[in-house]
Order: sequence, then structure tokens, then C-alpha cells
Amino acid sequence: MKVVETIDEVRACVAEARAAGKVVGLVATMGALHAGHVSLVNAARASSGLVVVSIFVNPTQFGPTEDFSRYPRTPQADIETCRRNGADVVFMPGVETIYGPGGKTEVRVRDLGETLCGRSRPGHFAGVCTVVGKLFNIVAPDRAFFGAKDYQQATIIRRMTADLNFPVEIVVCPTVREADGLAMSSRNAYLTPSERQQATALYESLCLAEWMIRQAHPPADEVIAAMRAHLTSRSGGAAVDYVQIVDPDTLQDVQSTSDPVLLALAVRFGQTRLIDNMRVG
Amino acid sequence: MKVVETIDEVRACVAEARAAGKVVGLVATMGALHAGHVSLVNAARASSGLVVVSIFVNPTQFGPTEDFSRYPRTPQADIETCRRNGADVVFMPGVETIYGPGGKTEVRVRDLGETLCGRSRPGHFAGVCTVVGKLFNIVAPDRAFFGAKDYQQATIIRRMTADLNFPVEIVVCPTVREADGLAMSSRNAYLTPSERQQATALYESLCLAEWMIRQAHPPADEVIAAMRAHLTSRSGGAAVDYVQIVDPDTLQDVQSTSDPVLLALAVRFGQTRLIDNMRVG
Repeated sequence: MKVVETIDEVRACVAEARAAGKVVGLVATMGALHAGHVSLVNAARASSGLVVVSIFVNPTQFGPTEDFSRYPRTPQADIETCRRNGADVVFMPGVETIYGPGGKTEVRVRDLGETLCGRSRPGHFAGVCTVVGKLFNIVAPDRAFFGAKDYQQATIIRRMTADLNFPVEIVVCPTVREADGLAMSSRNAYLTPSERQQATALYESLCLAEWMIRQAHPPADEVIAAMRAHLTSRSGGAAVDYVQIVDPDTLQDVQSTSDPVLLALAVRFGQTRLIDNMRVG
Repeated sequence: MKVVETIDEVRACVAEARAAGKVVGLVATMGALHAGHVSLVNAARASSGLVVVSIFVNPTQFGPTEDFSRYPRTPQADIETCRRNGADVVFMPGVETIYGPGGKTEVRVRDLGETLCGRSRPGHFAGVCTVVGKLFNIVAPDRAFFGAKDYQQATIIRRMTADLNFPVEIVVCPTVREADGLAMSSRNAYLTPSERQQATALYESLCLAEWMIRQAHPPADEVIAAMRAHLTSRSGGAAVDYVQIVDPDTLQDVQSTSDPVLLALAVRFGQTRLIDNMRVG
């Protein structure tokens, strides 16, 4: 496994693999790798001859009051995780490698980026799209792997990839959860022990909503009220950022729960913002 | 020479050429080809093993009151021009090929797109960047050729290409002019005979400004006033959209003309908007 920091190096690795007829898979991460990321590496391994894992904490997807500077950075452990799980190349560029001086270009996906997490994180998805577009042009993968835990991100990246004709297949892999249901996230490391216990309320409220919908397809309002009540009663001091039931493709709010829907929520434990979601139907 | 309409076809042509070790050059046009476009094809021919000319009148770079529907379309003559000048592939996609249903993605270059033509054509350069990004991903050229007549466009595309790490070299070729100095433009076809005569005032005013600057480097205000006076006195009923003297890299207004500057102007003859520019120093 090679660990490289420059664009020329990663391009050389990819060019060599492609000349040998290999399919190139990209797992784009911000590091602090956990079992969710490992599942993406495994999926890439299963369908690609060269697996590239990028590790880059992307400043442009963090708001000015968000956790860019304290976001967990564990490069040595990440390299070890990649090695153990069969990655071929780890691309760990510095910020100045990805964002040269005088950069002014932004990739934006209308509508999809303005709902759900986009409301409380203005500019977040433009930052994601811009860096993913850059990584696609740097690595030139055939396939790129993203986690369903970041459902809105995956939806937006799929839209961007189609809209800009990137010759990249987007593969979305299932959310990986802890034994008690909490979705794996690098930000779980921020939680105090009591917050960690309370955080199971996110997945519980999704399961509660799924059960309600399967039983009787009540209007979305009713389901959301039950989810909010559960979150409030079971998660102590956590503040609900949003609980929404949306169309899984357009991400716009729906009232009927008879057709397939996406349940999505974001909750803050102090400074720590956690998200989760579930497709139902 | 092949004439193709689909993305798969043009990608197949490029893949075959690349497998044969050829460098791929792209000339992206909106058709109605003139000697300016031919100079780009010639430049591409001189440095590329495969020359692809795209012909696509891009709706997203036209404002709602602009000339999208009446923009000149001369496909048969364009194909003949490409053939005579040694293009290998002409890519003529329909609008629905380039813009599939549900598209929501936009590429924007901050600052550079908001001055000069961006002021009177809001959204124009986002449309240009989006379609050029798409063409880069569809054709995957090694080099792409643009005309200096659209200086702001070339500057913005160069910025976008660097910012998004497209592996494409941007080549900007000199403006081609009629014998009396009028810059070649597909929109010159709109001009009445008397407007066509008056339109020489654009280049004359650039030459006047160049002469003033070379003589004495007067403040930009003085030069602009002289250019405006010349345009007004010599171009009859034409309306000046802008006359600006800007930094050739940032495109921001400058007051001193001692360092290199870009002289840029836009003038309307009735519904017809013409632009021109000159680098000085």
C-alpha cells in the first residue's frame, strides 16, 4: 500500500493501474476511520482492482462556527486501518494541495442542498460538491463509494455526477451501526458517556417511525410528533435540529407516508451534531 | 471526419484515439463558425492527434431576454468548415443530451464572473462554466482552445479548470479580426449594413486607448472618457454597455495604466450586443 500526499503521485498510481486494465475505486473520507468507512473500503475492494482512500478534512464544508479545527484527526491509525483492509493507495493531501491560492470556483446543487442539513449548514453541500468534484478530477475513479448515513450527501453527489457527466459510478453502501443502533460517525468520539447513552434515541426514533408507518401509514406530521416526543423524552438535554419525512429522491417534505419516504433527523448534544436516517417503504 | 450526436459516440472516438497514444484537443463552440473558430481548430490541429469540435448552442448561458432562440445556427456549413480545416470529430448534441431531466448542478466562479459582461448578463458565466465542465467530462480532452475575444470567459475557464483540477490545458488564441478591425463574432451576422460600418468604432476606441496609454499612461478615467467619446461620436445610435480598464488577471477595475491592463468594452446596436478587448503593456 502506498501513502501519497501529492496530486501527481496519486495520478501516477491510478495511471499505472489503469494501464494494467484495473478498475479504480475511490473511498473519499475525512479520516478518523471507523467500521462505516471500512465497509466502504470492503465494497471498493470487492469491485475494483485499485482501491484509493482519500483522507482530507475539507475546510470548505465546515461553517465558521463548526468543528473544523477540532474534527478528529488520526492519520497513523487511519493508515493502519486502510492497510489492514486492503486499500492500495491512501491519498492524504494537505489543505494547500487541494485549495491552491486564488481559488474561486464552487459547485452547487440547487434545491437538494437547501433542505435537511442544508438549512442549518449553509454552504456545507457546496463545499462537499466542490471537493468531491476535485477528487474525481484528481483520482479519476471508475466508481466512488459513499455511506447511506450521509443520505443527503450521497443524493447530492449522485445528482452532481450525472449533471456534470463525470464518468464515475456512485455506489451507496448501507449505514453501519453500533450494537445499540447508533450510526457510526467520527463525531461520536465527541460524546460524553451519558450523551453516548442518550444518542441511541436517534435510531430508536427512526425505528418507532418505521413501525408506525408500517402499521397504518399515518400522516407525516403525526409520525414526526412521535419521533420528536421520543427524542425529547429519551435524549436528556439534546436539542432537535430537525426531524423530517421527505421524498427519497427530491428530499422535499411529504405529508403522505404511503409511498416510500426517507426519515431524517439531526440532533445536537452540546456542540456535537449527530444525524441519522432510514428509508421506509 | 465523424459527426456524432451522442455522449457514448464521442467518448468512443476519444477512447480509440487515446488508446493509440494521441493527444486530444477540444474546440468548444456554439457553431456559426467563422475565421475565429477556424484559428482555434488550426491551433488544435497543430498540437493534437485528435481534434474534437463541439457545436452546441448552450441555453443556460443565455438570459431570458437574450438571443438564444435566434442565435445563428448553420450546422451544414459548420460541418463543412470543420471538414475543410482538418477536424476529426464534430460533436453536435441536442439540448436533451447535454441537459437531462432534473438537472440541478451549477459551477460558479466567484468575483471573476460578476464584473464586465457578468454585470449585464447575470448567470451567463455560470452557464458557460457548467457546460464547459460537462464537455470536459464528456470529451476528456488534454487541451481545450478558446479565443481571446472572449477574454473574460477564457479567464474564468482557466480559473475553473485549475480550481476543480480538470486535467486539461487551456490554450487561449488571439482574436481574429475583419480587415477593418472588427472582431470576428457569430453575432456580427445580426448587424445591418450601417451598423456593420459603425461597429468598427469598437476596435478604433481600443486602438485609441492603447495609443494614449503608450504615450503617457494617463489615469484610467481619462482613457475611458476618450473611448466613450469616440464610441458615441462614431457609432451612431449604439449604446455603450460598459467600457472598463481592469487588471488582466483579477478583472477588477484599476486606476493606473502603468502596469499591464485589459481594455474591455461592450456595445449594443439595437438588440445586438458586441464585445471586444485588448491587453496593453
